[in-house]
Amino acid sequence: MKAEEVDRNPSFVLRAVKDVAFEERPIPKLRDPHDVRVQIQQTGICGSDVHYWQRGRIGDFVLTRPIVLGHESSGTIVETGSAAKNVKVGDRVAIEPGVPCRHCDHCRSGAYNLCADTIFAATPPWDGTLSKYYIVASDYVYPIPDHMTMEEGALVEPTAVGVQITKVADLRAGQTVLVMGCGPIGVMCQAIAKAYGAKKVIGVDIVQSRLDFAKTFGADEVFLPPKAEQGIDPVEHSEKVAEQIKKQFGLGEGADVVLECTGAEPVIQMGVFAARKGGTYVQAGMGKENVVFPITTACIRALTIKGSIRYTTGCYPQAVELVASGKIDVKRLVTNRFEFEKAEDAFELVKASKPDVFKVMIAGVQS
Amino acid sequence: MKAEEVDRNPSFVLRAVKDVAFEERPIPKLRDPHDVRVQIQQTGICGSDVHYWQRGRIGDFVLTRPIVLGHESSGTIVETGSAAKNVKVGDRVAIEPGVPCRHCDHCRSGAYNLCADTIFAATPPWDGTLSKYYIVASDYVYPIPDHMTMEEGALVEPTAVGVQITKVADLRAGQTVLVMGCGPIGVMCQAIAKAYGAKKVIGVDIVQSRLDFAKTFGADEVFLPPKAEQGIDPVEHSEKVAEQIKKQFGLGEGADVVLECTGAEPVIQMGVFAARKGGTYVQAGMGKENVVFPITTACIRALTIKGSIRYTTGCYPQAVELVASGKIDVKRLVTNRFEFEKAEDAFELVKASKPDVFKVMIAGVQS
Amino acid sequence: MKAEEVDRNPSFVLRAVKDVAFEERPIPKLRDPHDVRVQIQQTGICGSDVHYWQRGRIGDFVLTRPIVLGHESSGTIVETGSAAKNVKVGDRVAIEPGVPCRHCDHCRSGAYNLCADTIFAATPPWDGTLSKYYIVASDYVYPIPDHMTMEEGALVEPTAVGVQITKVADLRAGQTVLVMGCGPIGVMCQAIAKAYGAKKVIGVDIVQSRLDFAKTFGADEVFLPPKAEQGIDPVEHSEKVAEQIKKQFGLGEGADVVLECTGAEPVIQMGVFAARKGGTYVQAGMGKENVVFPITTACIRALTIKGSIRYTTGCYPQAVELVASGKIDVKRLVTNRFEFEKAEDAFELVKASKPDVFKVMIAGVQS
Amino acid sequence: MKAEEVDRNPSFVLRAVKDVAFEERPIPKLRDPHDVRVQIQQTGICGSDVHYWQRGRIGDFVLTRPIVLGHESSGTIVETGSAAKNVKVGDRVAIEPGVPCRHCDHCRSGAYNLCADTIFAATPPWDGTLSKYYIVASDYVYPIPDHMTMEEGALVEPTAVGVQITKVADLRAGQTVLVMGCGPIGVMCQAIAKAYGAKKVIGVDIVQSRLDFAKTFGADEVFLPPKAEQGIDPVEHSEKVAEQIKKQFGLGEGADVVLECTGAEPVIQMGVFAARKGGTYVQAGMGKENVVFPITTACIRALTIKGSIRYTTGCYPQAVELVASGKIDVKRLVTNRFEFEKAEDAFELVKASKPDVFKVMIAGVQS
Repeated sequence: MKAEEVDRNPSFVLRAVKDVAFEERPIPKLRDPHDVRVQIQQTGICGSDVHYWQRGRIGDFVLTRPIVLGHESSGTIVETGSAAKNVKVGDRVAIEPGVPCRHCDHCRSGAYNLCADTIFAATPPWDGTLSKYYIVASDYVYPIPDHMTMEEGALVEPTAVGVQITKVADLRAGQTVLVMGCGPIGVMCQAIAKAYGAKKVIGVDIVQSRLDFAKTFGADEVFLPPKAEQGIDPVEHSEKVAEQIKKQFGLGEGADVVLECTGAEPVIQMGVFAARKGGTYVQAGMGKENVVFPITTACIRALTIKGSIRYTTGCYPQAVELVASGKIDVKRLVTNRFEFEKAEDAFELVKASKPDVFKVMIAGVQS
Repeated sequence: MKAEEVDRNPSFVLRAVKDVAFEERPIPKLRDPHDVRVQIQQTGICGSDVHYWQRGRIGDFVLTRPIVLGHESSGTIVETGSAAKNVKVGDRVAIEPGVPCRHCDHCRSGAYNLCADTIFAATPPWDGTLSKYYIVASDYVYPIPDHMTMEEGALVEPTAVGVQITKVADLRAGQTVLVMGCGPIGVMCQAIAKAYGAKKVIGVDIVQSRLDFAKTFGADEVFLPPKAEQGIDPVEHSEKVAEQIKKQFGLGEGADVVLECTGAEPVIQMGVFAARKGGTYVQAGMGKENVVFPITTACIRALTIKGSIRYTTGCYPQAVELVASGKIDVKRLVTNRFEFEKAEDAFELVKASKPDVFKVMIAGVQS
Repeated sequence: MKAEEVDRNPSFVLRAVKDVAFEERPIPKLRDPHDVRVQIQQTGICGSDVHYWQRGRIGDFVLTRPIVLGHESSGTIVETGSAAKNVKVGDRVAIEPGVPCRHCDHCRSGAYNLCADTIFAATPPWDGTLSKYYIVASDYVYPIPDHMTMEEGALVEPTAVGVQITKVADLRAGQTVLVMGCGPIGVMCQAIAKAYGAKKVIGVDIVQSRLDFAKTFGADEVFLPPKAEQGIDPVEHSEKVAEQIKKQFGLGEGADVVLECTGAEPVIQMGVFAARKGGTYVQAGMGKENVVFPITTACIRALTIKGSIRYTTGCYPQAVELVASGKIDVKRLVTNRFEFEKAEDAFELVKASKPDVFKVMIAGVQS
Repeated sequence: MKAEEVDRNPSFVLRAVKDVAFEERPIPKLRDPHDVRVQIQQTGICGSDVHYWQRGRIGDFVLTRPIVLGHESSGTIVETGSAAKNVKVGDRVAIEPGVPCRHCDHCRSGAYNLCADTIFAATPPWDGTLSKYYIVASDYVYPIPDHMTMEEGALVEPTAVGVQITKVADLRAGQTVLVMGCGPIGVMCQAIAKAYGAKKVIGVDIVQSRLDFAKTFGADEVFLPPKAEQGIDPVEHSEKVAEQIKKQFGLGEGADVVLECTGAEPVIQMGVFAARKGGTYVQAGMGKENVVFPITTACIRALTIKGSIRYTTGCYPQAVELVASGKIDVKRLVTNRFEFEKAEDAFELVKASKPDVFKVMIAGVQS
């Protein structure tokens, strides 16, 4: 069932902190009869890719040997294992980048995003998808319809991140939803909330151009938090801003749901203060490990605060559906496109954090 | 349907910060056909009573005019309104101290503990129960069986607090439960968790005598956190202690459920670090408004963090059942008993925070 | 705060089975400071109104003395009690027709739709809304925006029924939803499911014109079940039809959610057979008390089967929002409009059950 | 890592309907590095084993070629695959008899009990455990402590069935629990409910000796339904019996939770009628495919009706805990014990359905 043989597997490799290079690697082999080999077609760059490049670690994941970068990818099936029934050679697919162990209690109870033995693309020590070929379990690739482009296929990944966040939030139609942050994940959450029938979606960011974009992408309203007056206690400032948000957008006691997609300390505080009594706050952004947190408010208001990480079953199919149906127009997120050979330029561009750079894509190896 | 007339209503009144006195107040009248009048028989003192006495405020609740103190009470029905069907004169009852508005969305959706218009005993501006008579809605008194003493009836209140905490935690049989704090609410949570079929209940406190008591009341295991080594970052210390707890008690990735009943910053941190991936942490203790909080851990481990406040429907009946069935032997909590006329001495004793003073009771007016 | 006095209250009264008449009744008085008096402007006729008219009973509710008919109404506030804060005289409102006791455990835990002491319009022994004036608790009227017509205000009621059904179903974006029945409640459920981001909504009915309407209102697909072949076991037929539905609409193992809005025995069976393993089936339609039911299938497939009745907190505001935002174009349901004085003609028309009669409205008393 | 070689694998085989025999089969080999080989020590007989023997099919599972019988077993690990980390040779384990595919959506979302590709012991076409050796995935065996006997290890299976039923019921401490049926699964549910802090557990059966046993095992109260009076409609009879149960045991509106463990039509009806408004009914027993069912009652009372099948993650560990801690004294269920060579006699005894035969055990091959 193998596709025609190819003899090279060019890869974009993080060799050490701040040291990337193109390498010619062997074509990877299926590890299991359920595996498939995918020829990568498009890959989006995520903040975590840049983080490993510049710092070499995120939490417990530390770069100790070279890894291929990239994990937001689409591609074409070129080889299928004997037990891979759901796809065939030639299928165009979105790739879920983490395949869990399937044997631990987290896996067995549906929380495979918590599996400690997940093989996750571009998370040390695992290779990522910025190669010509990538091996993945067949149930972690998802066919995309013909009318979806490969670029849209790669953008299923951030969509799935947003789907998981709204799932963790137990988001319902008719709710008021406050999204802290208007980066790729933030605006995705806003658009998803809207597609799910939210009553009002409010986007918050400190960059006006992002707010402007958010307003056209999913948010009903946007808000740029004022700077703190000099001398004011920072938490007090956060609470004041939260009160301003509630008042300005008619949220009464607060938002039904707050989705935090920045990880910034004052924004976290604003988010907690802006949730209504009995409301839900989801932490999806990551920044400082520890922050000053209004725990008494969380207690007295009986908030539900949850962390969202990665994806769970159903996120990818739902993300494909959101993109395929046109409910989320993901291609509007893309501001810059690079050939595979220019991958380092793409990474440099993301690293520069310019306000007009939103989502940067790298094409697959063409020959 | 009125009971025989009485012409006095002695009350223990907080007139201003640090200023209490006995006053002769008029016998209160039913406000609504659903109301009943209760002759108070026993009242436990809670930390919040002492807090109002010494500070005059808790959060948004500020003492602006004299209020009667006390809210953990039992008594005997002496008068029933025309619409009060569930009790009759002579019934011995536990009193739920907060009667909500019944009209707001919180009340209508079952979260009456969040109602902003609750009449809550001894929370400004509302009078408490340390009077001869107290008026309350008939559906907020709960008959107790003959074999329960009035003291046990009053102790239904802290039991109900624990019932709500375990309800918020969605606590299930077979779970490992880590309870931070071995004060009255902490040990109550431990005993309830055990009665609910917890696999292992661990109590944490910094006072050895409380740990000793906890071990005999509900905890399978107890733990006294070591002091931080000099120079160590406080959060790092908290994380180390959490790892020690996990290791010492065979919790693997951590406890299924953490119930925080202290409100102390380092203990909050320990609790969060000690919860397993996907686990639940409930904030019930109140201390500093804002604390340094391991938010990234909460995010990555996909924790569910919830605040617990007051009680909801079913807590009181379940608390009566736990006491009546002997599953929770609440009278063991009582270390000191006072006559009504000695109420101030009782308050002074609680204020002193001696390790051998656990729960202090005040009898009702006897004549 | 009373509006100008009026001296008459014309009412459309069900005096006995099949015996209706217009009566001049006294203007009703507020029963409670939270009450308001509404001048009724529009009322939709529901099957249950006709049922009481023709049969005099539904389940335990039996007509024993004359009652005013009607319960799907909108109107204008003409008087407010002293405690009614959320509305003022002149406000245009949708009326939730059942006001519960607020004191029983169902009320206190958020399930007021199960309260046995609800005052429900036009359910014996309670008067309905087909009068000039109607008294109701202020928290059971919901202001509608200016751009909504009074007819739309009255149609908030069946919308709220649909909102509750989807709430009971725990309906989520991305699900496949099979709705049995394309009457007013069925098509409402279809439109709501679509507004909530359902992946695919399928409407089933035995009347082609209803299917045609459903297709334009909310359903992605519609299905007319074939008649049973002679001699086939009825349950076997139902199972075959369910298999056909799954196959024809690509549902795989079955629909994620089935909403049963007919109460017809074979349709109930089809619905259960058409639900996927682990799926949810909601019974909202009412017909025969007892039906032959595939209980072993329900067991083996681990279905969740739930009953939906009336509304709970949040249904009315959400229904107003769905209509006000244009997500549900309820006025398209109305096929016939009558003056108040022609109410009996309106009832006769509904009774006749013609395929081209969908929703029939009766205007309020005009003078 | 292989244990010492053995050269035979005696097996008790169902060759065709009503045709069993002992066969010498080859020693089975590990299929996967995660697998382990277990030497079977004790096996309980379940109704389904007898059903396959006498009828050759249950639902869609049809005997088409010989299979080894038995699925409630304990044993000793004699060989471990290279990836099997949680157990080692010599470990004494309870065996979960169904290993799912791990790749379908049910498996990936934690509902592996619904996986269509489960290898389930003694369910055609899969061999059961009544052999000397059995191969199973290492995460589907659970070490038992030294103080548990192998017989108790085998009885973990019906305990786990009960754990799943109470999990499906979302059973909580403080609830009233009505269990229809006092067979092995029924009494297990009663004992589990009690261990979980149920307020009152009522067992129902038509055999007095079973009720007597239930009363000593877990039930607070037992009930023997009266026979229907002649001429009474069967459903009406069921409703009357349900009302009698509610009245006799002070259940008010009904039981919070009903667990149906018989599958008998009238008992199913009684169970539904006996659930309180908003209550939960779980179908665990299996009998007639379709039954006359009070669907309107289910609708009006807003019941939640769920099917329970097999087990999910956590059931086995929790069942081991319940047995190991002494909370469930499973050995009291065993009435008859047989050597492996007498397996057919054991099956004949179960088939005979005598009232004094409750649980029948078969020892493993001893040489």
